[in-house]
Amino acid sequence: MSAAEFPAETSVSGEWVRQHNRFTERVTADGSSGWSALPGRYHLVVSLACPWAHRSLIVRRLLGLEQAITLGVVDPLRDERGWRFTLDPGGRDPVTGIRLLSEAYLATDPEFSGRCTVPALLDVESGTVVSNDYHRLTLDFETEWRALHRAGAPELYPVELRGEIDEIDEVVYRDVNNGVYRCGFATSQRAYERAFDALFRRLDLLTERLERQRYLVGGTITEADVRLFTTLVRFDAAYHGHFKCNRHKLAELPVLWAYARDLFQTPGFGETVNFEHIKNHYYRTHPAINPNGIVPAGPALEEWHAPHGREALGGSPFGTGTPPGAA
Amino acid sequence: MSAAEFPAETSVSGEWVRQHNRFTERVTADGSSGWSALPGRYHLVVSLACPWAHRSLIVRRLLGLEQAITLGVVDPLRDERGWRFTLDPGGRDPVTGIRLLSEAYLATDPEFSGRCTVPALLDVESGTVVSNDYHRLTLDFETEWRALHRAGAPELYPVELRGEIDEIDEVVYRDVNNGVYRCGFATSQRAYERAFDALFRRLDLLTERLERQRYLVGGTITEADVRLFTTLVRFDAAYHGHFKCNRHKLAELPVLWAYARDLFQTPGFGETVNFEHIKNHYYRTHPAINPNGIVPAGPALEEWHAPHGREALGGSPFGTGTPPGAA
Repeated sequence: MSAAEFPAETSVSGEWVRQHNRFTERVTADGSSGWSALPGRYHLVVSLACPWAHRSLIVRRLLGLEQAITLGVVDPLRDERGWRFTLDPGGRDPVTGIRLLSEAYLATDPEFSGRCTVPALLDVESGTVVSNDYHRLTLDFETEWRALHRAGAPELYPVELRGEIDEIDEVVYRDVNNGVYRCGFATSQRAYERAFDALFRRLDLLTERLERQRYLVGGTITEADVRLFTTLVRFDAAYHGHFKCNRHKLAELPVLWAYARDLFQTPGFGETVNFEHIKNHYYRTHPAINPNGIVPAGPALEEWHAPHGREALGGSPFGTGTPPGAA
Repeated sequence: MSAAEFPAETSVSGEWVRQHNRFTERVTADGSSGWSALPGRYHLVVSLACPWAHRSLIVRRLLGLEQAITLGVVDPLRDERGWRFTLDPGGRDPVTGIRLLSEAYLATDPEFSGRCTVPALLDVESGTVVSNDYHRLTLDFETEWRALHRAGAPELYPVELRGEIDEIDEVVYRDVNNGVYRCGFATSQRAYERAFDALFRRLDLLTERLERQRYLVGGTITEADVRLFTTLVRFDAAYHGHFKCNRHKLAELPVLWAYARDLFQTPGFGETVNFEHIKNHYYRTHPAINPNGIVPAGPALEEWHAPHGREALGGSPFGTGTPPGAA
């Protein structure tokens, strides 16, 4: 077994064991949690490279929460100080004034010693972290922030489908969203192969499901599609090579590839994807995996815009809602 | 710029500059070079992982030189001592008795300090290296060893096509055979991208050529096909991920993919391919590129046996010759 990229999150048998999310406060419609859903009160910090943050970016846009929740975007290159606001003038987040995301983490918990992760929802006034719990964050955007949704916002987490959405989210998280990391950050051949097998077995099961229906649950886009999409869109650009998820490329799995293109071409999805940030982040910030830091020139990306033919399966992306307007 | 896998073969601007082949003696039909083509006199040492050695293995088999030239196969894992005979009983090459290929190199030139490479043609009696010059070795098998060819051996380097074969060999060497190494061993982004661009530009040109004709030169298999094949067959298993040759997989380039499968399914080719040696070698002996030494479980390989449809282009694999018999 060799050196781990994140030793604190690697088991003795070489498995990647992701840290728990430290901050799990919830913003609620009625403020009963102590945090009310109010416009301008919260600042969402994301990396465009990160699949967990990408969920919140897509949902914020689909629901029209852009005015209500401001956005901070960190540099795709994470150095020993973690995520940095080096893309902003003066290297400071214009809303909170911090230079490093860790400043907000330490302002909230001076003892915090884990990785400072995105997405992070900050309280603008205090500069503290309300939540870095991406499991919950988007669900709350969908349910607790309803009063601030745009007119025509789709229903991404419909009451009657929540059981089914939660169920699929759980296995997609385990085998796919986190599964690619379990492949890439494994430090033993055995741990890697177990993650690899689970990943592709799950992709095969998802293929069977998506062969017959346009979206994962019901006839419209839901939270479940958002979560699967953020991993699929990174698959060939990062996970296939960098994380050795290479039984096939996504581009070689016709059903999932068409499904991913369909979403990519749907307003709210493709325009939130930044392949440059994705490739630079993965290939340049994991020296234990890619020590020379060279970023692959491939894969060819023009096919993301090719026709997908999935309209024939029926369904309607936004149900009775409407697509989001120009970004 | 980061650490190079082979510092002595890396330029200051991060380019991979392969060492020259040290031993360039030639075995001749008439013995005028001091080395006569005689059965049992020479021992060919190969790694099944190595594309340069693979050429000699294919040609030896196509021409039926298996009885005349014995074969030594080294361990696919090269450690700090270089290529080793650890696959053989007692860890010794049964023909020459050496444990390390470097013993033969040093027996020939005690001052030798470069990488000891395969293929190496050894003189059995003295245990010295006659040639590690893979540019010449197979051409001599085809021309100087003619008296020892099997009945029905194909003409792999026909006099009238030599100009054309040499011409294509040269650009295929530069951009493809060695080009994948120039991608993988580059230590600067710029050097990598130049190699990447040249590689895929060349593959596009080869695609145009092979769209209209079954083989690279003339209507039958020649040396040029052997040389291109040994890189193509490693492309998805090693170069695409490990060397970041990832604009497309070979499996995504329909013409070259069918061409490679056609050869793979031709006697003399597929049975000389050992994907286990290939994957283990590349992923486990380049710590500067893959420090954790994990070997990808992919890609799926069953498609190598799928129909290729190239018979429709005409031509005949062995011309007036015959396929080699059972291995």
